[in-house]
Amino acid sequence: MKSILIVNGPNLNLTGKREPGLYGNETLESINAALKKKAEEQNINVSFFQSNCEGEIIDKIHTMTEDYDGGIINAGAYSHYSYAIRDAVSAVKKPFIEVHMSNIYAREEFRRHSVISAVCAGVVAGFGKDSYLLALYAIKDLI
Amino acid sequence: MKSILIVNGPNLNLTGKREPGLYGNETLESINAALKKKAEEQNINVSFFQSNCEGEIIDKIHTMTEDYDGGIINAGAYSHYSYAIRDAVSAVKKPFIEVHMSNIYAREEFRRHSVISAVCAGVVAGFGKDSYLLALYAIKDLI
Amino acid sequence: MKSILIVNGPNLNLTGKREPGLYGNETLESINAALKKKAEEQNINVSFFQSNCEGEIIDKIHTMTEDYDGGIINAGAYSHYSYAIRDAVSAVKKPFIEVHMSNIYAREEFRRHSVISAVCAGVVAGFGKDSYLLALYAIKDLI
Amino acid sequence: MKSILIVNGPNLNLTGKREPGLYGNETLESINAALKKKAEEQNINVSFFQSNCEGEIIDKIHTMTEDYDGGIINAGAYSHYSYAIRDAVSAVKKPFIEVHMSNIYAREEFRRHSVISAVCAGVVAGFGKDSYLLALYAIKDLI
Amino acid sequence: MKSILIVNGPNLNLTGKREPGLYGNETLESINAALKKKAEEQNINVSFFQSNCEGEIIDKIHTMTEDYDGGIINAGAYSHYSYAIRDAVSAVKKPFIEVHMSNIYAREEFRRHSVISAVCAGVVAGFGKDSYLLALYAIKDLI
Amino acid sequence: MKSILIVNGPNLNLTGKREPGLYGNETLESINAALKKKAEEQNINVSFFQSNCEGEIIDKIHTMTEDYDGGIINAGAYSHYSYAIRDAVSAVKKPFIEVHMSNIYAREEFRRHSVISAVCAGVVAGFGKDSYLLALYAIKDLI
Amino acid sequence: MKSILIVNGPNLNLTGKREPGLYGNETLESINAALKKKAEEQNINVSFFQSNCEGEIIDKIHTMTEDYDGGIINAGAYSHYSYAIRDAVSAVKKPFIEVHMSNIYAREEFRRHSVISAVCAGVVAGFGKDSYLLALYAIKDLI
Amino acid sequence: MKSILIVNGPNLNLTGKREPGLYGNETLESINAALKKKAEEQNINVSFFQSNCEGEIIDKIHTMTEDYDGGIINAGAYSHYSYAIRDAVSAVKKPFIEVHMSNIYAREEFRRHSVISAVCAGVVAGFGKDSYLLALYAIKDLI
Amino acid sequence: MKSILIVNGPNLNLTGKREPGLYGNETLESINAALKKKAEEQNINVSFFQSNCEGEIIDKIHTMTEDYDGGIINAGAYSHYSYAIRDAVSAVKKPFIEVHMSNIYAREEFRRHSVISAVCAGVVAGFGKDSYLLALYAIKDLI
Amino acid sequence: MKSILIVNGPNLNLTGKREPGLYGNETLESINAALKKKAEEQNINVSFFQSNCEGEIIDKIHTMTEDYDGGIINAGAYSHYSYAIRDAVSAVKKPFIEVHMSNIYAREEFRRHSVISAVCAGVVAGFGKDSYLLALYAIKDLI
Amino acid sequence: MKSILIVNGPNLNLTGKREPGLYGNETLESINAALKKKAEEQNINVSFFQSNCEGEIIDKIHTMTEDYDGGIINAGAYSHYSYAIRDAVSAVKKPFIEVHMSNIYAREEFRRHSVISAVCAGVVAGFGKDSYLLALYAIKDLI
Amino acid sequence: MKSILIVNGPNLNLTGKREPGLYGNETLESINAALKKKAEEQNINVSFFQSNCEGEIIDKIHTMTEDYDGGIINAGAYSHYSYAIRDAVSAVKKPFIEVHMSNIYAREEFRRHSVISAVCAGVVAGFGKDSYLLALYAIKDLI
Repeated sequence: MKSILIVNGPNLNLTGKREPGLYGNETLESINAALKKKAEEQNINVSFFQSNCEGEIIDKIHTMTEDYDGGIINAGAYSHYSYAIRDAVSAVKKPFIEVHMSNIYAREEFRRHSVISAVCAGVVAGFGKDSYLLALYAIKDLI
Repeated sequence: MKSILIVNGPNLNLTGKREPGLYGNETLESINAALKKKAEEQNINVSFFQSNCEGEIIDKIHTMTEDYDGGIINAGAYSHYSYAIRDAVSAVKKPFIEVHMSNIYAREEFRRHSVISAVCAGVVAGFGKDSYLLALYAIKDLI
Repeated sequence: MKSILIVNGPNLNLTGKREPGLYGNETLESINAALKKKAEEQNINVSFFQSNCEGEIIDKIHTMTEDYDGGIINAGAYSHYSYAIRDAVSAVKKPFIEVHMSNIYAREEFRRHSVISAVCAGVVAGFGKDSYLLALYAIKDLI
Repeated sequence: MKSILIVNGPNLNLTGKREPGLYGNETLESINAALKKKAEEQNINVSFFQSNCEGEIIDKIHTMTEDYDGGIINAGAYSHYSYAIRDAVSAVKKPFIEVHMSNIYAREEFRRHSVISAVCAGVVAGFGKDSYLLALYAIKDLI
Repeated sequence: MKSILIVNGPNLNLTGKREPGLYGNETLESINAALKKKAEEQNINVSFFQSNCEGEIIDKIHTMTEDYDGGIINAGAYSHYSYAIRDAVSAVKKPFIEVHMSNIYAREEFRRHSVISAVCAGVVAGFGKDSYLLALYAIKDLI
Repeated sequence: MKSILIVNGPNLNLTGKREPGLYGNETLESINAALKKKAEEQNINVSFFQSNCEGEIIDKIHTMTEDYDGGIINAGAYSHYSYAIRDAVSAVKKPFIEVHMSNIYAREEFRRHSVISAVCAGVVAGFGKDSYLLALYAIKDLI
Repeated sequence: MKSILIVNGPNLNLTGKREPGLYGNETLESINAALKKKAEEQNINVSFFQSNCEGEIIDKIHTMTEDYDGGIINAGAYSHYSYAIRDAVSAVKKPFIEVHMSNIYAREEFRRHSVISAVCAGVVAGFGKDSYLLALYAIKDLI
Repeated sequence: MKSILIVNGPNLNLTGKREPGLYGNETLESINAALKKKAEEQNINVSFFQSNCEGEIIDKIHTMTEDYDGGIINAGAYSHYSYAIRDAVSAVKKPFIEVHMSNIYAREEFRRHSVISAVCAGVVAGFGKDSYLLALYAIKDLI
Repeated sequence: MKSILIVNGPNLNLTGKREPGLYGNETLESINAALKKKAEEQNINVSFFQSNCEGEIIDKIHTMTEDYDGGIINAGAYSHYSYAIRDAVSAVKKPFIEVHMSNIYAREEFRRHSVISAVCAGVVAGFGKDSYLLALYAIKDLI
Repeated sequence: MKSILIVNGPNLNLTGKREPGLYGNETLESINAALKKKAEEQNINVSFFQSNCEGEIIDKIHTMTEDYDGGIINAGAYSHYSYAIRDAVSAVKKPFIEVHMSNIYAREEFRRHSVISAVCAGVVAGFGKDSYLLALYAIKDLI
Repeated sequence: MKSILIVNGPNLNLTGKREPGLYGNETLESINAALKKKAEEQNINVSFFQSNCEGEIIDKIHTMTEDYDGGIINAGAYSHYSYAIRDAVSAVKKPFIEVHMSNIYAREEFRRHSVISAVCAGVVAGFGKDSYLLALYAIKDLI
Repeated sequence: MKSILIVNGPNLNLTGKREPGLYGNETLESINAALKKKAEEQNINVSFFQSNCEGEIIDKIHTMTEDYDGGIINAGAYSHYSYAIRDAVSAVKKPFIEVHMSNIYAREEFRRHSVISAVCAGVVAGFGKDSYLLALYAIKDLI
């Protein structure tokens, strides 16, 4: 049975409380619960990690080498400048899928570029909670 | 029963013949067959359109108003400069999902920006044939 | 009696159906009818051409050499990147007026520059249907 | 009976004396006389103001609130950098049409962008004296 | 006996009629006749294709895989922005030579960069009709 | 008893009449009255100057050398390009505080940079009328 | 009685020890003491938080929703790139004032732009310790 | 006997009082006196004009057509953005020499480019008062 | 006896496990052991610190003031955007040497610029483990 | 009988020894021998010059005025920045053809632009040794 | 008696033979003769140096330290990119005046910026031969 | 016994005479003597070459193929634009170390980028004379 890690970055702990128009009004907890259910149906073991701290996210990604077969990452605003997280994703050499709940390419100029995309297998953006679910489907073939 | 249109742009008729390393080695026909099968399982009526001509793609998108409930579009290289296709997508006021088989954000500089993304509901990129399948899952909630 | 050609580019066939706030709610057909009436009052023979295809627009412009004394062109989104249409306008050596229904200089960054303006005699933008009528007045002195 | 103000900016008092190839060889006075005549035919009261001083142009535009129903402005070289005139035009909340005698989009790089266009209803450029006349026709529907 | 395809893009059908100072005053037909004669001397079978339509050019290039051993392409103004033609050239995996009659590097800024050059074997520009003839000499060693 | 000069630039005479959402609905006169009252409480002599003319603003700033101990300046749209006012502020060698009623850093791109900031002691922006009052408090320690 | 949070970012714990020419020679502790005293005079409850860690700053800002009515933030060098802190400030939907002790607009190029300004009510920069005091005055009207 | 006009722009009335390190410590009056003396020796009639107002400078330049044979201009900070003064200089069709007391090419980035240089016969910069004297020598051959 | 601190930033704890082609295959531990040995030979006391967290790195650098005479820093990917670490290095006023194992100037565009270099005494890049050893030699003369 | 000069710039003396994949493995001497033979067949007198020194190349080009009817130049890396060689080519007013063995438009960014192209009659790039031979054919019609 | 060196860079040996419209039709020799005559009248010893080679120009400038009191330099096209000549001028710590015969600020974009200006005392451009004579007058006060 | 070449570029012959604050006050000769001594201790044969001429530097580097095992290069100001030297270094296929006495990354903008770095094994900058010594240590492992 395969294991994957779902990493959420800064401010995503506020999901469902912040700008529901953009992100839907489910909380991160309810999203994770739905993901866990779907993952079980697919016989995948799924773990969750959220932190507002760039360093902790990197620390967690480093554990991928031993504990996980792949990852899904929504690095929030760190997506736009954290070359350190990019290096971590690249270093662990496990397949990652980048996820955004909103369509970042339709928002402010600075949100339209992610420095992490280039080291991920693929990108899913704009489907709210479903962005994670689609990534979950997609990662099966990669791990 | 809902109907969706899957639009493929320039050179995608060569899929499976061109650079299989990047796009997988299935042809567009076999991808479409798989999509049709999945769509039927979901009770969605799916049509396919491919053209190398920007104008024909626009003509086809204009038929969306009457004949379709939503669309999936892989505009190929037109994604990077066709403001005319962007305007067509925007004008028909039906939900569209942008799809790329390769992870365009990890390729040449000019491929990392799509002028169409901003008028689509969401973007899926990097999963080969599966990019279309994921979009098919996602569009159900939008139409 | 002089003849002019009025060329409309991509998505303008949807005029009156698309974003009426920006372009007014008359259709291209009703605009053309009004233009035809005004042209007759001024003793000008006016023809209309609309296409979503860059190549067909170029083909049509090439007929200018023999059949027309001048042109009015609203190249839609092609205005922003079609150096091929620019070359066609420049090649036929007949006076052209560029027209936009919306004030393109007040919209998205990419719409504020037209590559066609530099080879036209003048530009009229922002007056909805009246942009064409003003161009019709103006072209009399040029042909 | 409606009243409009026609504002001419720096160096336009030299019209007809400066580079006639670009602007025609009528003086500003003769242009204004023609405009006055046309305006009377249309039952519009028209006033004229020319100044080389950015501040005086702003002062005059401020009088729009009470004395005029709309304006036509050729801000000359101020068009390219006077955010102060832009703010004045925007502040008085009356419809303005921007006018240039030459086709500014076909000239030096710095002349191809006007900071005033975005707060005007529309733009007419490239028809010499007729640019003003076309604006006069167009403003009827706006005031 | 080898076969090559000579592709001409938008407005090149006007060659000899448009700006003879830049391109010489031979028509495309007379150039093609001269090329055919030279090709026969070299025992090469040469075909010609001209279109103003980006999509038709792509369609034709796709036929390269089966029918031709190499190509010469003058994509006209499409050279400066058609990533779609670039992808077509790249996809068919036959040697191409890019040709321009004028020295594009000595003209307007936007003409100095071709997006197609990078996927061609080489570039010849500035020799009028002779640009094609030189390419014809050069392609022998590539096919 | 110290004297300071409060300089207001173009269009600020319309304050309270223009876009009250952005600037509050008090007029410049009522703001000045409030400032005068506060200044008296602090035993500061305060003078006011408003002009739409760049040159008059410079003339006035030149009087600083003899008549004033410091200044507060809201140069309006001139803030974004008037290197001449910047030089005047710099030349008189008296402490200046730059003030904006709106938060210019949250508005259009061109408003986010002030060429005057670098020669002022400090900047206060975004507090409507209170921006001036805060500057009044701050200038005490500088003069 | 209202409560506000004063957030200080990286290296500000060294205040009074680092480059006193730029920031004055009071320590952060003595500044906070002065702020506390002033706040009490205005019947405001004030809390202080300093961290060199972007993630901890975000964590603290998230507590705003329940515990505070507004905030004053000097994000130090994070001001110039932390879109994550920007998102946190934006998410808690409480009024924030951005503060800098030095006039950042008069320093190195990279310090002249703050990504946080656009989500704050206003900005105060250049007055050393007094920047905080001015913000304290200003926040009263916002909370 | 030839007549020339020496135009000085904003803040140059402070010469000798402002930053003597950069501009020398002679006042504009003493510089003008020295210039008058030198001009008389060369049998040239010289007039002086200084204004801080862009519009007045333009008005004065317009008088060139009738009253002067050439001009020397130090437009101060207007040099860096006043396309309106540039147009005035260009319009009067008399030879102008641009002068700067400091070496503008060795100062802040924004001072290194003058929009006026391109319409002047030549440029002299960096010699303090002597910049004017050198221009006086040079203009003899131009008028 | 002098003491120096060697700071390693994000992902450097993976050294020897990540992309050995670029960084050699020694682990950070073995590098540190070699450095310790060399330092002892030179009678220098050397301490080591590694963290993936920007804030912890800043915290540690702050301890320089009291505990160390100089530092060697490889800030990993933070080198390219952490103005906060730059400020920390600058604030403690002890000599620092910037070190990179790979030749960052020969890698991706974003890696070719370090915001930390300007506040260090010097830079050593491209020698794998030896980069640290060379810095160790160099720092002797600086502390 | 016409004479032409073939100029080779820096590092081209290493041809055949350096990166044969890019340039073929013939030496400059063998290329020159082949060129001499071809030239004789065409009744052209050909001379060769190679130098790594920008100044010597300019000196040699200056001899064109008297001794040669035209030139072929491969300025190597000087192509990308030597405005001095450009001026020399332009000054002697003899037709020049620019040649590159590799397709410079398909290489590193800095190699895609040649400052010399604009003053040459035409450009041939990408055909190895044959680039020179093609230029030899082409120059016949120019001299 | 003071000694100065007049340095002329690449292609200036062709003066009077190249583009006389831009530079006048006197040769460098006749210009130098005129300069020598003028210098003697002013009791200055003047030497001349021209080279097309960047390195020789640097070598010559290095002799300034011992043999000359100041210099006049027209570095030709090297002005636009030779940071090496800039460093030489800066290193010898003697006053230099930069001279151009044409008005470089009115020519092609790349000629409008000189990297040498910032290390010279002043700049004279646009007066043909007289540019040198003016510099000769100016240098008296500097040496 | 291995041999290395130490190449010094323009103006470095003035070392110890020019701006000692930046480069220390030892002459190039004394630096070379120290290097020779250190090299002998390490059993390396070291040769020195300095030239102000780009072409001579390239000529010398070409001798690397036969006579040397590696190189140390301080190309002075040529570092910032000499793609010709870059190509020479790259062509000889011997390990090179780039050296700068000053920390170029802390100086003027144009000095912060070296076009040579990307073809060297590593870079050492900022340690005055010691930069060479460190490179000498480092090159042992590369040759």
